[in-house]
Amino acid sequence: MFLNHALSGSAFLRTPMPLLATVEAENSPAILSGVLLSLVVIYLASKIGEEVSKRLDFPPVLGSLIAGVIVGVSALNLIVFPEGGISADDSNLMTILQWFNHLSPAALTYVFESQSEVISVLAEIGVIILLFEIGLESNLQQLKEVGIQATVVACVGVAVPFAAGTGGLMAIFHVPAIPAIFAGAALTATSIGITSKVLSELGQLKSKEGQIIVGAAVIDDVLGIIVLAVVASLAKTGEIDVFNVVYLILGATAFLLGSILLGGLFNKTFTKIVENLETRGSVIIPAFIFAFFMAFIGNAIHLEAILGAFAAGLVLDETDASNELDELIRPIADILVPIFFVTVGARADLRVLNPAVPENRAGLLIAVFLIVVAILGKIVTGWAVFGQPGINRWAIGVGMIPRGEVGLVFAGIGSASGVLSKPLEVSIIIMVILTTFLAPPFLRVAFGDSGHPPTDEEDVSVKMGESQSAS
Amino acid sequence: MFLNHALSGSAFLRTPMPLLATVEAENSPAILSGVLLSLVVIYLASKIGEEVSKRLDFPPVLGSLIAGVIVGVSALNLIVFPEGGISADDSNLMTILQWFNHLSPAALTYVFESQSEVISVLAEIGVIILLFEIGLESNLQQLKEVGIQATVVACVGVAVPFAAGTGGLMAIFHVPAIPAIFAGAALTATSIGITSKVLSELGQLKSKEGQIIVGAAVIDDVLGIIVLAVVASLAKTGEIDVFNVVYLILGATAFLLGSILLGGLFNKTFTKIVENLETRGSVIIPAFIFAFFMAFIGNAIHLEAILGAFAAGLVLDETDASNELDELIRPIADILVPIFFVTVGARADLRVLNPAVPENRAGLLIAVFLIVVAILGKIVTGWAVFGQPGINRWAIGVGMIPRGEVGLVFAGIGSASGVLSKPLEVSIIIMVILTTFLAPPFLRVAFGDSGHPPTDEEDVSVKMGESQSAS
Repeated sequence: MFLNHALSGSAFLRTPMPLLATVEAENSPAILSGVLLSLVVIYLASKIGEEVSKRLDFPPVLGSLIAGVIVGVSALNLIVFPEGGISADDSNLMTILQWFNHLSPAALTYVFESQSEVISVLAEIGVIILLFEIGLESNLQQLKEVGIQATVVACVGVAVPFAAGTGGLMAIFHVPAIPAIFAGAALTATSIGITSKVLSELGQLKSKEGQIIVGAAVIDDVLGIIVLAVVASLAKTGEIDVFNVVYLILGATAFLLGSILLGGLFNKTFTKIVENLETRGSVIIPAFIFAFFMAFIGNAIHLEAILGAFAAGLVLDETDASNELDELIRPIADILVPIFFVTVGARADLRVLNPAVPENRAGLLIAVFLIVVAILGKIVTGWAVFGQPGINRWAIGVGMIPRGEVGLVFAGIGSASGVLSKPLEVSIIIMVILTTFLAPPFLRVAFGDSGHPPTDEEDVSVKMGESQSAS
Repeated sequence: MFLNHALSGSAFLRTPMPLLATVEAENSPAILSGVLLSLVVIYLASKIGEEVSKRLDFPPVLGSLIAGVIVGVSALNLIVFPEGGISADDSNLMTILQWFNHLSPAALTYVFESQSEVISVLAEIGVIILLFEIGLESNLQQLKEVGIQATVVACVGVAVPFAAGTGGLMAIFHVPAIPAIFAGAALTATSIGITSKVLSELGQLKSKEGQIIVGAAVIDDVLGIIVLAVVASLAKTGEIDVFNVVYLILGATAFLLGSILLGGLFNKTFTKIVENLETRGSVIIPAFIFAFFMAFIGNAIHLEAILGAFAAGLVLDETDASNELDELIRPIADILVPIFFVTVGARADLRVLNPAVPENRAGLLIAVFLIVVAILGKIVTGWAVFGQPGINRWAIGVGMIPRGEVGLVFAGIGSASGVLSKPLEVSIIIMVILTTFLAPPFLRVAFGDSGHPPTDEEDVSVKMGESQSAS
């Protein structure tokens, strides 16, 4: 039956391959070695960082990020990428590889670039899986219930930091429009995982304040992903065109809403398909086909792959296979998501903010400015709550501060798009780290925590930020 | 604290990036689109193939492979690789990508090569995970118990097809030594999964014949992996040097035995580490660090990555975390292993065996020769059993026939190394397909099956060949 496909024959004797294929075949073991060694370094760094962070009572994802900084271009130079003038000679991982393979300089460069490309794509697939998992965990029903208060808080929490951040960067620091918008957008995120974990520890998850914070954080996620899709697209074209902005905002919203509406119809079909499959991977493979297809469409219509993955997660959360899928996606996320966080840290060159170097001071000022806007811009959201006399406005504002992994997604995508200057990129990462570090103690103070051991009111550990946390 | 790592500063203003980084940043969304679309095609093909194969009562992995042939270079040209003169214009997937991204010819070539590289490495990681899983499922204890009979059957089943295949190819067809040895080695494998599934269906798994077949197949796996490591290394250096062959055989054996012995000591440490981890992925990440590190070492000392992964699986199977690991590895294998099987099929250009083209006839004769040797070389193993009067020698011989996925691993690695001529590669794949198709009906005849519905004596569905089967 196969021979029916035959269209033409080829000579029996082996014909010489063109140059590229030869280069590939010769270096393919070295590329695989490079990828395997990179993954070993990434997993080791991520796990050690997470465990240390957890023991110090900080969110694990922060440990993963800081471990990335340590193995990356700022310090150990193990995980580095061919950008900003970095060559194979700068990579200590390549030096290790050279002990085993004696590659020519040209082959070494080829291997370095190829393995970096593979790790970059794996990191992108990692963030796609992360957003797919977040989508799976976000309950559409819950989103509808949290109501108008949370929506107002979320909108204020997106609008104020975005406007203050973008405006300030352009007016005070003369940053060009596109990177300024990108940095402003990175300020809009709220990490539901970190906040809800602390609220749960304080026994405040079911309080009025807690409900508003969690609801607003969920809505914030959705708004943040739309903002990111718009901003990242602007970064790709490199110019701001009013029609384009309108297209992007409408497009992203329509894409998300359309997916959810169509998804309602697709639900039953998906469940039916899954039920009829008899071979291994009967749930996970159809789910991945759907998620990757949606990610492809998101990317192809010049929005973002993660928007598609998030929409796919929202849709599949409504199916009967949802619980099984939650279980199956965990080990896959466990091995792919750390690649994203570690490489975000690894790419961030903290040396550009070394205060000992005079020309770095402007960058440092930007970092300080972003952190101030990040904190104040969210604290004001507490005063957006109306008709709730006696509510703890400080607690709500402080609860919205941590940026967590959504802020990092902005930094990572900004870095990959090449639109952010190095100091701006590093400032965003430091802003994310600091807001995430500060939120837990601030929140305890705002709620007047007496230090009593908490009761776990609700298991929200798999929500968002905790994608990297509880085991 | 981060700034301690600062070594030097860099200018605040964004400096222009070198050419390569620009090319990468510009094309990175297109590369991601290419990878996502490739994965969607691979998963769709694999799932449909598996389901059809299963319904026709064939092993699912065969369906995956044939689906790969259909989407690959032989027919639909969706999943093709830049080798043997294939360019981006030959890839229908790239044509689809061009609808969304209007890339220049140079950019298109860059995107095609980059996404092919990523898919190739993902396929290699897929086969590493497959061998890790097989290692996890192979019980060292069981291996020790099956005893001398199974060992003799396994050794005969490796030696006879290897000698007859290699010798015949060199003497009759004048194939050069290295590809002849490679093809001969591909004849040595036995698929434990397919055989044990059929034995279980016939209710013969616990019979004397069944026990010998399964035991021999397990030993065959280990021998096959050592043979593969040796042969693949020969293919890399391109010449046969007696010292090198001795080094490789001793090296591979020592590596495997050494890993198992050291692993006995490492067991407790691993369990202890896993127990003390508190963050997500506490079992899977340490396991992957170990597996990828062993795979890296296997690759780095010029053996094979899969040998290291297999050894890692054998070692971790002895730990307390083994059962949990079996569960966690499944969804990961489900999404990575199909990439390997589909790309093996996709790379195989069946047109080189089109009998309508006169110069293909030599290749066809090779295919016929390999199939005959593959069947006869295993049937003789039945007569290697001694001191067992009245045993069904036909059944034992026939039970050893199916090559399954281990044969495909040979074909895949041979193809990646560039040592096999296209007709020889395709002949091996057809040999694997035919032996695997033929074994189930042959085995029913040899056992004189009356067609009664079977009782499932034992769940061996996760063993080897069934890595792709029961859900």
